[in-house]
Amino acid sequence: MTETSSPAVAVHGGAGTLAADDPATSGQSAEARLEGVRRAAALAWEVLRAGGSALDAVVASVVALEDDPVFNAGTGATLTATGEVELDASVMDGSSLAAGGVAAVKDVRNPVVLARAVMERSGHVLLAGEGASSFARESGIAPYPNALLVTAPQRARYQAAREGPKASRGGGTVGAVARDGRGHLAAATSTGGTFLKRPGRIGDTPLIGCGTYADDGLAAVSATGQGEQIIRVTLARVAADLVGTGRSAPDAAREAVRILAGRVRGEGGVIVMPPRGEPGFAHNTPVMSRAWVTGAGDVHAAL
Amino acid sequence: MTETSSPAVAVHGGAGTLAADDPATSGQSAEARLEGVRRAAALAWEVLRAGGSALDAVVASVVALEDDPVFNAGTGATLTATGEVELDASVMDGSSLAAGGVAAVKDVRNPVVLARAVMERSGHVLLAGEGASSFARESGIAPYPNALLVTAPQRARYQAAREGPKASRGGGTVGAVARDGRGHLAAATSTGGTFLKRPGRIGDTPLIGCGTYADDGLAAVSATGQGEQIIRVTLARVAADLVGTGRSAPDAAREAVRILAGRVRGEGGVIVMPPRGEPGFAHNTPVMSRAWVTGAGDVHAAL
Repeated sequence: MTETSSPAVAVHGGAGTLAADDPATSGQSAEARLEGVRRAAALAWEVLRAGGSALDAVVASVVALEDDPVFNAGTGATLTATGEVELDASVMDGSSLAAGGVAAVKDVRNPVVLARAVMERSGHVLLAGEGASSFARESGIAPYPNALLVTAPQRARYQAAREGPKASRGGGTVGAVARDGRGHLAAATSTGGTFLKRPGRIGDTPLIGCGTYADDGLAAVSATGQGEQIIRVTLARVAADLVGTGRSAPDAAREAVRILAGRVRGEGGVIVMPPRGEPGFAHNTPVMSRAWVTGAGDVHAAL
Repeated sequence: MTETSSPAVAVHGGAGTLAADDPATSGQSAEARLEGVRRAAALAWEVLRAGGSALDAVVASVVALEDDPVFNAGTGATLTATGEVELDASVMDGSSLAAGGVAAVKDVRNPVVLARAVMERSGHVLLAGEGASSFARESGIAPYPNALLVTAPQRARYQAAREGPKASRGGGTVGAVARDGRGHLAAATSTGGTFLKRPGRIGDTPLIGCGTYADDGLAAVSATGQGEQIIRVTLARVAADLVGTGRSAPDAAREAVRILAGRVRGEGGVIVMPPRGEPGFAHNTPVMSRAWVTGAGDVHAAL
């Protein structure tokens, strides 16, 4: 039996499509995505089982998803209009409301690790561009060449888009929410943003209350989808507040996505971890790869 | 008599202190700030009286406050650790939930005008750094030399801080909320951020739900104060939601500041314009310069 406030984790690999015209995700995509989220959830579960914090667990998950070239975060992220990778990420600790984010970072392998450093050591919540990079160097996070973040399929997709009609935007933002043995919650989210985005564009992912929110008294939430629409309704905060009014996490997730669709015609999804009980998932896109572990430690996954 | 849903505007010139050690605001500061917010509120009122939209009104106010060297926004903004001005601003239209923001912009005279262009023409909500500057050029917003944004008092304050003990952070973020004759709401906020900030640091001002929020069904809100703490509680969204639950704007403003203080020991303030009735103001700092016009058109101001 699942104890109602026992440790639990849920991760997502982005709300979107499994577009056949997307060289980054065609063919074995569904299988590769399920495998990726399953592995990330299992990793976080090991952290929790060993007595680690919810914060440690979500960061471990998101690092794995950033390093997995199948997802649009870290290595394998989509390219900007100028053919580079620009990464956004954030993290929030529900026990203290401490939060950190980075935006438009080009020279870090794991932006979620830098977001955690911003939270813990910068005195700030959000750093962008070169300011974020210089803080990374001061924090001992090694520079990582942008070219190493670019995978062959993403380069090919970029070339195809420049030569022909625009490819689909794809999905693939990643995120994780967790509850640890002391009942604390945490959330983290990471992305390369929209394909062919304007350099300097910041979506919902690094923004507290939009892509990420965590408050032990409400819920931990990670969002994915059309970033601009998610910002306009502060989707993560809305989903957390719905749990705060007494809704179950699955019900809060569904209602939050209804609000996204109804208020601003947005497409996307959320994962929601409540202070007790089962996590919730909802999306209004064709797919949202996700995996979760609760109770006895069985790993579940779905598209 | 004030009609309950008649046009109204409220502006602020920042929550903070009237620090004697702040060369930008010493001496005639209180008088200069009151004069500045009074003029900005009167300008917005003229826009509303002429049938202009709430959005037009808040942008007109904030442009005036950006151009006023007394406030920490646009010309007269505080300097970063590297001695430059880096500006943040945002705007939101409560009738459509359309929103725009810019962060860490160095070469624009009126960042709130650029934030509106981002909202109306970029397809994005938030642009940072050089990406925001290049969008400004595409939008026909002329480059403005950073040195022209730096006033003599701010330069002197920077020099003093480098030579001696750190001066107070000061305040001076500016913002406006308005309700027009059709019952629509809008909010805008603009700042130079914290004195001696790390380049690339983004505070609450350009972030939707944190420094700025507007929803015709809830309220229009502009926040000011300790940006990092404001982000962690998504202060503007919280204040708007409180109006949505039936609280008056003054009560919602007070409760939002109580949450800021209680949850994250934050200092700051908010101005709140409801769909009907009088605007609300609250702050837990020594002062928050502000002005408002309702009903018959009399301009009120307070510190």
